Amino acid sequence: MSDTLMTRPAMAPARQKLLEAALAVIREKGYVAATVDELCARAAVAKGSFFHHFEGKEALAVAAANYWSETTSAFFAAAPYHRHKDPLDRVLGYIDFRRAILTGEVSEFTCLVGTMVQEVYDSHPAIRDACDASISAHAATIEADIAAAMKLHGIRAKWTANSLALHTQAVLQGAFILAKARGSADVAIASVDHLRHYVELLFQPNARRAS
Amino acid sequence: MSDTLMTRPAMAPARQKLLEAALAVIREKGYVAATVDELCARAAVAKGSFFHHFEGKEALAVAAANYWSETTSAFFAAAPYHRHKDPLDRVLGYIDFRRAILTGEVSEFTCLVGTMVQEVYDSHPAIRDACDASISAHAATIEADIAAAMKLHGIRAKWTANSLALHTQAVLQGAFILAKARGSADVAIASVDHLRHYVELLFQPNARRAS
Repeated sequence: MSDTLMTRPAMAPARQKLLEAALAVIREKGYVAATVDELCARAAVAKGSFFHHFEGKEALAVAAANYWSETTSAFFAAAPYHRHKDPLDRVLGYIDFRRAILTGEVSEFTCLVGTMVQEVYDSHPAIRDACDASISAHAATIEADIAAAMKLHGIRAKWTANSLALHTQAVLQGAFILAKARGSADVAIASVDHLRHYVELLFQPNARRAS
Repeated sequence: MSDTLMTRPAMAPARQKLLEAALAVIREKGYVAATVDELCARAAVAKGSFFHHFEGKEALAVAAANYWSETTSAFFAAAPYHRHKDPLDRVLGYIDFRRAILTGEVSEFTCLVGTMVQEVYDSHPAIRDACDASISAHAATIEADIAAAMKLHGIRAKWTANSLALHTQAVLQGAFILAKARGSADVAIASVDHLRHYVELLFQPNARRAS
């Protein structure tokens, strides 16, 4: 999502500048390509200050994943879809909201943690775990609404609220990859439309009996 | 998918060894982290031989994406799901086949081109284009069966065979990312199950009228 849309927790200016630089540079070119020199330059922070705040690039990446979780949590918590009374409307509203923020440059709407974990899942377990925690915590917020919607609408199915919540994240992460390959959000938007249609079908009375 | 499952086109041994090394190393740690020295060591090929066959690492990556397309095309073309007479069974059979090959190490079942494009979409347009071509060509094979299934089953919908084919690839690419974050294929398998269920619902008579 666009950086300008997110709220920021209070912290030391140099530390926050470095975290913001990590968000920007890693989303543009990945974790390995982002050098400490470039991160310092982007943050307009001296290298000594970098090592005052972080042991090294891996520590910054872990902190950046946690910072990403905090800022995106606040961003989604403030989004309008939570106002819906029917939890199914909140789930569909979440998907519509994800669709609506697929704007601007590809690096602005794609995901820090999905980008990092793609490269470092095997080489940097600490970063992988921070990325997993970020994706899982976000999915848990969707899972709660899906579980409430299943209860309200009397859905008994082989699939679980947990698996559908994780599936929404898989679709979004994969949609980002296709958008990167094509240099356009259009293919991602089409995939999010399929995700919305799937959720509609799962909660339709006829589909409900069949699922 | 597992390397051992794929057929290989004939070519100079050193060139093929370097391409195989690129597939293995890049799927393990990404494009930027894979050094020429490591690729040569993995291939058991001298550095002079590397530069005889490739101008540099970017040229190897482009060739690796094309090689990936060739070998995976042959692999999928030989898969059993093509035998089904009903094109819908071929589409569902494709999804079942993708589910069945989610085995072994994460680096063995995840996608070379999805991994590379995640990092280099902005920094290496030649690699991005080769990754896009690979994903698009594979999606086109699914699109043909989806289009035939829509025709046979009288589906008139807002969605297109092209968008559903690309959506299958988005789900798979995103499922790989979640598998990397969790260090397990289980979450990817659950997402592929949701994809299958979606296709079933799209082609069900009741869902058909509603879509």
